[in-house]
Amino acid sequence: MWIFREEEIRRVVGLDGDAIAAVEKGFACLAEDGVTMPPILRVDIPEHEGEVDVKTAVIHGESLFAIKISSGFFANARLGLPTGNGMMILVNAVNGRMEAVLMDNGYLTDVRTGAAGAVAARYLAKQETDTVTVIGAGTQARFQVKALAQVRNVKRLRVAGRDSSRVERFVREMEQELDILVTAAVHAEEAVRGSDVVITCTPASHPMIKTDWLEPGVHVTAMGSDAEHKQELEAQVYRRADIWVCDSVDQCARLGELRSVREAGLLAENAHVPDLGSLVLGRENGRVREEQITVCDLTGTGVQDTAIALLAYRRLREVGAGIQVEGAIQ
Amino acid sequence: MWIFREEEIRRVVGLDGDAIAAVEKGFACLAEDGVTMPPILRVDIPEHEGEVDVKTAVIHGESLFAIKISSGFFANARLGLPTGNGMMILVNAVNGRMEAVLMDNGYLTDVRTGAAGAVAARYLAKQETDTVTVIGAGTQARFQVKALAQVRNVKRLRVAGRDSSRVERFVREMEQELDILVTAAVHAEEAVRGSDVVITCTPASHPMIKTDWLEPGVHVTAMGSDAEHKQELEAQVYRRADIWVCDSVDQCARLGELRSVREAGLLAENAHVPDLGSLVLGRENGRVREEQITVCDLTGTGVQDTAIALLAYRRLREVGAGIQVEGAIQ
Repeated sequence: MWIFREEEIRRVVGLDGDAIAAVEKGFACLAEDGVTMPPILRVDIPEHEGEVDVKTAVIHGESLFAIKISSGFFANARLGLPTGNGMMILVNAVNGRMEAVLMDNGYLTDVRTGAAGAVAARYLAKQETDTVTVIGAGTQARFQVKALAQVRNVKRLRVAGRDSSRVERFVREMEQELDILVTAAVHAEEAVRGSDVVITCTPASHPMIKTDWLEPGVHVTAMGSDAEHKQELEAQVYRRADIWVCDSVDQCARLGELRSVREAGLLAENAHVPDLGSLVLGRENGRVREEQITVCDLTGTGVQDTAIALLAYRRLREVGAGIQVEGAIQ
Repeated sequence: MWIFREEEIRRVVGLDGDAIAAVEKGFACLAEDGVTMPPILRVDIPEHEGEVDVKTAVIHGESLFAIKISSGFFANARLGLPTGNGMMILVNAVNGRMEAVLMDNGYLTDVRTGAAGAVAARYLAKQETDTVTVIGAGTQARFQVKALAQVRNVKRLRVAGRDSSRVERFVREMEQELDILVTAAVHAEEAVRGSDVVITCTPASHPMIKTDWLEPGVHVTAMGSDAEHKQELEAQVYRRADIWVCDSVDQCARLGELRSVREAGLLAENAHVPDLGSLVLGRENGRVREEQITVCDLTGTGVQDTAIALLAYRRLREVGAGIQVEGAIQ
């Protein structure tokens, strides 16, 4: 079995066109029924404000697939520890052998989550995406903005967040990294109004984006909600949107924004909600008119994990990274 | 993060009283609601006759818990490869860090599954258990018999299996290892009749044990069924049994023998089915009379995995085993 460390993984996989293409192809396979993706296994440890998720997906035809363990322990922040952690295991899909452990500490999740935002924007954001607002100033907010910059020519970035020192740091870092104007917004509303793209990256459990802030032409990527109690958008946004797309409709109806839409009684029994892969395949329209309001509801899927892990593994082996540990006794 | 190899793990954990005690305590915690154990995550890869399960359980109060990945690829046997494979990951329950990988290749699963059989026999088999029948001649059949020998004074062992060369090897090995008389049965029925304990260890999808073979005083441990399509006992056995116990009632009703009982309409709405942990705690009676017929339905639970992994980890650290790999960049 191969073991790869975070620094080796960071050296071979970045948030670039290849990562976006790998995730995009994963969504296409999912929409083509070429993927087996069971529901997420989730463990809650409330006494330590912790949650651990296990996600997986088999892309049929690929010889390996990933099982990802990721944890979020929110009390860690008070101790100066990172709240998120994780690793991926690559399993041989032909004989069941455990082939590799990617000790990425959540890095590949950050990349594949950012990449999904780029895929959403590619099909749903206006070609002229000048002004972008991001709600939240954490690690994933950075990944989302950098991913978007790979597919659209972003000129101005606004950021809104609760913690002003984190927002200030975000402004400094993103200005330097993207070489564009970045401003801190006092109110979310003023940031959202007039934006071409809005990205929500928070752990909010109450909506922060109001329906009437959304103006014609805006695209919203809501990536924060991935659990039954989370919500970033008002449920009415579903009615306001011309196009509403999910990374996985089943999963979003349980864990994403679509859950609150459903619970508010706004989702008709026979409602047709397209998934992102159908847009990639050209089976469904993305944005066709400037003035449409579009939303992409992202909960994070196992197929993204397998897609990015396969890219990482191929490159790690190519460059001769990793250590090999043998434990079998035959 | 610590990495431990199979040979190191085998050196510190065996199928002994400590392993049985650890698993027994795990069942007690489960019955006391001291455990969070989400449903199994399962991936099927039918094109390669493969299945991968992820099991986990948090024992509250313990600082670590295990996430186990196990695979069964049944075409491997034709290629001369082991069909089963697996590893466990120990996650810190307080801060979510990934602490250790136990590359046990399924060894700890064999131990904890055998140990559950011993726990079942401790509460359900007659004190005088002279004659034991095992159906199946694979690895787990060996573990079950060795585990039973830890809690009962077995004098005669009968084995029934489809593959006569495997049965012959089983007879030779078990005679040597346990120093008792071991015989190969021509028919399962002749083996089962007159036995004090019957253990079924097969991947059967049709019942192999008929209800009227079971005579007063017998205890049956059915450990083969752990999926929706598996079944080793006729559903009517449920009616014939005086005591029917499950490792986890929820799980057995989906994946164990209790599933076929339910589907046959033999399980009343308000039926009370005790779990093994309630016997350990003394909340429910095990066998109280010689002539009772008892059944234990085992599907394999995450709490057994966490219990055995914690025992292994403590001992591995004590003896200074393992290698440490650091991958974090802070």
